[in-house]
Amino acid sequence: MSKKYAIGIDLGGTNLRVALVSEEGEIARKIKKSSSEEVFGPLLECIEEVSNSEIIGIGLGVAGIIDRNNGRVFSSPNLRAVEGLDLIRGIQQKFHVPVFIENDANVAALGEKVSGAGKNFENFVLLTLGTGIGGGIIHKGRLLDASAEVGHMSINAEGEKCPCGNTGCLENYASARAMIARAVAMLEKGSESILKECCKGSIYKITPEDIYNAALEGDILSREILRDAGRALGVGLANIINILSPEAIILAGGLVGAWNIYVQEAIREASRRALKYLFDSVKIIPSSLGDEAGVVGAASLVFMKTAKNSPHRF
Amino acid sequence: MSKKYAIGIDLGGTNLRVALVSEEGEIARKIKKSSSEEVFGPLLECIEEVSNSEIIGIGLGVAGIIDRNNGRVFSSPNLRAVEGLDLIRGIQQKFHVPVFIENDANVAALGEKVSGAGKNFENFVLLTLGTGIGGGIIHKGRLLDASAEVGHMSINAEGEKCPCGNTGCLENYASARAMIARAVAMLEKGSESILKECCKGSIYKITPEDIYNAALEGDILSREILRDAGRALGVGLANIINILSPEAIILAGGLVGAWNIYVQEAIREASRRALKYLFDSVKIIPSSLGDEAGVVGAASLVFMKTAKNSPHRF
Repeated sequence: MSKKYAIGIDLGGTNLRVALVSEEGEIARKIKKSSSEEVFGPLLECIEEVSNSEIIGIGLGVAGIIDRNNGRVFSSPNLRAVEGLDLIRGIQQKFHVPVFIENDANVAALGEKVSGAGKNFENFVLLTLGTGIGGGIIHKGRLLDASAEVGHMSINAEGEKCPCGNTGCLENYASARAMIARAVAMLEKGSESILKECCKGSIYKITPEDIYNAALEGDILSREILRDAGRALGVGLANIINILSPEAIILAGGLVGAWNIYVQEAIREASRRALKYLFDSVKIIPSSLGDEAGVVGAASLVFMKTAKNSPHRF
Repeated sequence: MSKKYAIGIDLGGTNLRVALVSEEGEIARKIKKSSSEEVFGPLLECIEEVSNSEIIGIGLGVAGIIDRNNGRVFSSPNLRAVEGLDLIRGIQQKFHVPVFIENDANVAALGEKVSGAGKNFENFVLLTLGTGIGGGIIHKGRLLDASAEVGHMSINAEGEKCPCGNTGCLENYASARAMIARAVAMLEKGSESILKECCKGSIYKITPEDIYNAALEGDILSREILRDAGRALGVGLANIINILSPEAIILAGGLVGAWNIYVQEAIREASRRALKYLFDSVKIIPSSLGDEAGVVGAASLVFMKTAKNSPHRF
């Protein structure tokens, strides 16, 4: 019997990734493009480019709140261009295969379950730590049908206003956006920091990597920013542990690169806050698929939804 | 075929409830006693008293963190007497039927699913609002295997220290214990309030009912206490909605009696904070089984765990 393939698409906030993926979770071909205002055109081109004649379906992971029944994106604060688009219909009309849609962090969790760091866990939560903070929950080996918008959990009821409408959201304190905003604000106020030299002349171009590199060189402001963001993440981790008692929390996204300051601080803070027995039962580990978790998970959506006897079906 | 029965036991913080329950969730006989230092003796007596010859098992809901594999209670801050006890073995040795154990709020959620306010929902979260705040999660019609310690979700990272070790726990702001502590503190400071007359001469005997009744009579302090607690509960509700996107949140426990001030305020606050589409998709409703949800749910544990084809099995 010939190998089965599906196309997995990860339509996150900043990049469009499209891959041809086997049922075993292996990537046969892949493309990456920057997200643009126009979504449909580049998306259809990419699918065409990686596709082969054996694909049994197409899976999409999209940043935002998904209406699974109607295949639309209700709301996508980081990717306004897809809001209200009927992505499923548009793709189906051209490729004539089943198309499935899910939230991008949810499919990343699926990807880690199928062939990544979550392979040996039945119950885990994946967090994507980047510009924003997203989540996906795997329970008894399957994707939990839940929004998992952990970035919009308030950890500070009277805190900063979040664009989502809530106040004190985890994302306001622990995301890359939050770190950069704080660095810029502090430098504007005249704080001393080697960050000024790291960022190619403009403090408005500072990246999380700049902050991490400056911190490694002993920059006090940068270390403080990473540690405070880590502590906030730790509050969120403790809440997740107390509510969901997962076997593992898998951390993905660009900020995982700052593991030995930001994440270490988060783990320390969570250990102080979570119920002891629950903390002792959870492993906090990095993603193993990295940027590819999304396309692998999106493709596995197809295999799960179409296969009757898949162990990973919903 | 004769009717099947199980015994359901609810070993909460303040009361011990034991009932003989049919597979349909009907209570045939029930007893209630105050919890005491000695747990086993009164428990075995109560079981004996309600039991009949057709019971197929005994289910226990216990306040605290449960070690399901070993039938022990790891930690029970409101019922220290059961910590470390091998409840399953003790009961099994006397009654020779299968015995199952779960967290008390988890079995209350099961009870509401079997024959209460959750009957028509596949995905809901039950909150018990009393001395403390507990939770149980039903997903796709089944009890989610999760601690659901929603009372120990921090909503104020730099807030008050909680006995659990965390700071700013929901329970510190929205529980009966929190309301009473605030009322006493304000009266000690000399606040004007008719609460002083409501409480039979000692402000240290104030109950949530006293606060509610005073609020209904227009007492400003009491209204403020209920509203602030409600707002804190609303922060917790919004977090639950953003993370779990349930179809319903079912509110149980003594504080539900203060619905038209405390809960209304919570719903208003949650509506301001939760992601709009998710808030619009959730119903926030009271428990319909009230104090009986625990025993019904504990008995249904037995039917689910022993029946191979039960639609509610795990």
